[in-house]
Amino acid sequence: MRQSLLFTKARKEAPAGEVAFNAQLLIRAGYIYKEMAGVYAYLPLGIRVLEKIKQIVREEMDAIGGQELIMTALQRKELWEQTDRWDDEKVDVWFKSSLKNGVELGFGWSHEEPITEMMKHYISSYKDLPIYVYQFQTKLRNELRAKSGIMRGREFVMKDMYSYATDEQQHEAFYNGVIEAYMRVFERVGLKDDTFVTFASGGAFTQFSHEFQTITDAGEDMIYINREKNIAINEEVLNEETLNDLGVTKEELTLVKTAEVGNIFNFGTLKTEQLGLNYVDNTGKNIPVHLGSYGIGITRLMGVIVERFADEKGIVWPESVAPFQVHLISLCREENDKKQAEEIYQKLKASGVEVLFDDREDVSAGQKFAESDLLGIPKRYIVSQKTLENETLEMKLRTKDEAEFVKIENIYV
Amino acid sequence: MRQSLLFTKARKEAPAGEVAFNAQLLIRAGYIYKEMAGVYAYLPLGIRVLEKIKQIVREEMDAIGGQELIMTALQRKELWEQTDRWDDEKVDVWFKSSLKNGVELGFGWSHEEPITEMMKHYISSYKDLPIYVYQFQTKLRNELRAKSGIMRGREFVMKDMYSYATDEQQHEAFYNGVIEAYMRVFERVGLKDDTFVTFASGGAFTQFSHEFQTITDAGEDMIYINREKNIAINEEVLNEETLNDLGVTKEELTLVKTAEVGNIFNFGTLKTEQLGLNYVDNTGKNIPVHLGSYGIGITRLMGVIVERFADEKGIVWPESVAPFQVHLISLCREENDKKQAEEIYQKLKASGVEVLFDDREDVSAGQKFAESDLLGIPKRYIVSQKTLENETLEMKLRTKDEAEFVKIENIYV
Repeated sequence: MRQSLLFTKARKEAPAGEVAFNAQLLIRAGYIYKEMAGVYAYLPLGIRVLEKIKQIVREEMDAIGGQELIMTALQRKELWEQTDRWDDEKVDVWFKSSLKNGVELGFGWSHEEPITEMMKHYISSYKDLPIYVYQFQTKLRNELRAKSGIMRGREFVMKDMYSYATDEQQHEAFYNGVIEAYMRVFERVGLKDDTFVTFASGGAFTQFSHEFQTITDAGEDMIYINREKNIAINEEVLNEETLNDLGVTKEELTLVKTAEVGNIFNFGTLKTEQLGLNYVDNTGKNIPVHLGSYGIGITRLMGVIVERFADEKGIVWPESVAPFQVHLISLCREENDKKQAEEIYQKLKASGVEVLFDDREDVSAGQKFAESDLLGIPKRYIVSQKTLENETLEMKLRTKDEAEFVKIENIYV
Repeated sequence: MRQSLLFTKARKEAPAGEVAFNAQLLIRAGYIYKEMAGVYAYLPLGIRVLEKIKQIVREEMDAIGGQELIMTALQRKELWEQTDRWDDEKVDVWFKSSLKNGVELGFGWSHEEPITEMMKHYISSYKDLPIYVYQFQTKLRNELRAKSGIMRGREFVMKDMYSYATDEQQHEAFYNGVIEAYMRVFERVGLKDDTFVTFASGGAFTQFSHEFQTITDAGEDMIYINREKNIAINEEVLNEETLNDLGVTKEELTLVKTAEVGNIFNFGTLKTEQLGLNYVDNTGKNIPVHLGSYGIGITRLMGVIVERFADEKGIVWPESVAPFQVHLISLCREENDKKQAEEIYQKLKASGVEVLFDDREDVSAGQKFAESDLLGIPKRYIVSQKTLENETLEMKLRTKDEAEFVKIENIYV
């Protein structure tokens, strides 16, 4: 993509009133636009990062048998009343409205209910199970406060997956597979070392649920960790019993601030009993289906990545989620040099490299470098009269301070 | 994809209360699920078709310089008040709700206002123009009636594009380019011969706007067409003046029923004046930006394609939007034959063909064929003991009645 054609422009200042570091940087660099508190649009650069993250998650969900679908934002009141999650006293993040005939509707903040209701059409026998479905859905949540940028929004993208299983054993096998798949996701986006499978409060069916917590000062959670033992406990469930169960003492644990990037939850048969989702087992008995629910906050993950890797100059994207792999910056002024820079851009693209080409002519070298640092693309090539004379480019990784000269003929993959 | 693992199953009957032919077929085949009137979820097969259509549109929008982004569902009241489109008397499809502090919000049914407001951050000089942006957005519209299946939903996917230009001339050039790009889209999805660029009512700035109308009995519009002269006129603007302007007589026109699959609209400087989006021209003068707006109903297009090509046996997808190119149906019962069928599936996939593999063992041949016709995948291969003995498959196109035998070695691309 040619930077001269990109409608967004880097800004020196974040908008007044934006207090979150991740959103400040992302707005300044032109990845996102703030519509209102907790509500952000994703601009051409931002949508590229989002799609990269989604594709990583999609591949890992497909690999464990997930089938992608997309449910609806509009929600029927009757359904959520059956599980007692319609009342604002019970769920305090609903946005609600009504049809012209007065029928009340909600806007989807989660989707266990509609997916489970739908499965009544597709599940009748044990032969139909297990089923794993997931979606990338824009969730709408009427949050009281929204001050964490894209890490906690009123409108945000979540990957939510739901598993339907015959029994605890079939459920458990998949549940454990999701833990591994989630850790592969966090590894691929560069967060593995700082992300912990964390014991958190369970529900009617289990002592614990599992959260995936990533260490960051921008987080809203506090967890206790022991890196050697690979144990992490949300402070909400830290007590004598938990410590005993997990074989660790409080002294061995360190308190850290974290953001919840994923969570997985065993609903058991609670919700399927409420909604009447049953199957017939191989003896002819009618039995409620086991439900599991598994989320990764896609836009939150993008925010956490920014928070985790950014430095004083700007964003630093891991290559796997960067909007482009290469930022090719032209400082050429002579026609012949410009032609060569253009050729390099075309050949890089043709060789399959994603390139942002800073072909702008009315911008100083200093501004180009500063903006490049702000954008955070992993690899920067500078092409100028000087480098062309030696048939080289100046190459610098965003994570390093030193640049080196590389032969042009060697940059194509 | 293995059909044995697909959680959806074909049904013989459409749900009671679903009156639209497109939705009846799509629900029966497992492409979509009806959440409520005008609100449909897209299941694994359906999401594949949607993504195919989106990708065709994306390529054509990118080719004319479009930059993809994604705006928000949540909308600020103040903004829409500035253009007098907040009041329910003026716009009767709003869903509205409010934040916990009482601030009223709307849910996006269109996005001219927020995108134009945003552009105030990115447009200041004539050098910043033109800008073309587009999105695939889930629109929410509080329609009084919703009886056309996915052709008119309360929740649906639209590609909406917006152009910002210095003046009428710059605007016009892009506007005409969009007409061509849209016709390429309709050609690629198989609808070109039945789709007409149609004169429809304009606005404050132009005598006409242009709609893209596709002939179908499921449509809600009536237009007058003359195929030879390639003229189409929405009945709403058919009068003496229009006939004179277009050089056609009423006798030369035929009245047909159509669905509006796209529309393009010249807002001139009306909305940018209301919202204060100006640029400085090369003489230093402050001038309002020209706005154009261009929509294609993505889910509606999917519905129109179903309506247009389906026959009494089920859906018939054009290859460009089909969820899979090949439906490989195994009738094998012997282990060795099954192994060979599996090999064919793997080799087809490896050669880059998208294959739905009907590997189900407890389903009769007759049911498999009937369901295959319902699903509408363009090419069907049947593999059985008999065909394997001759090292062939039985091949039939969904659009043809005759089958033929093809050598297995020749099916890989």
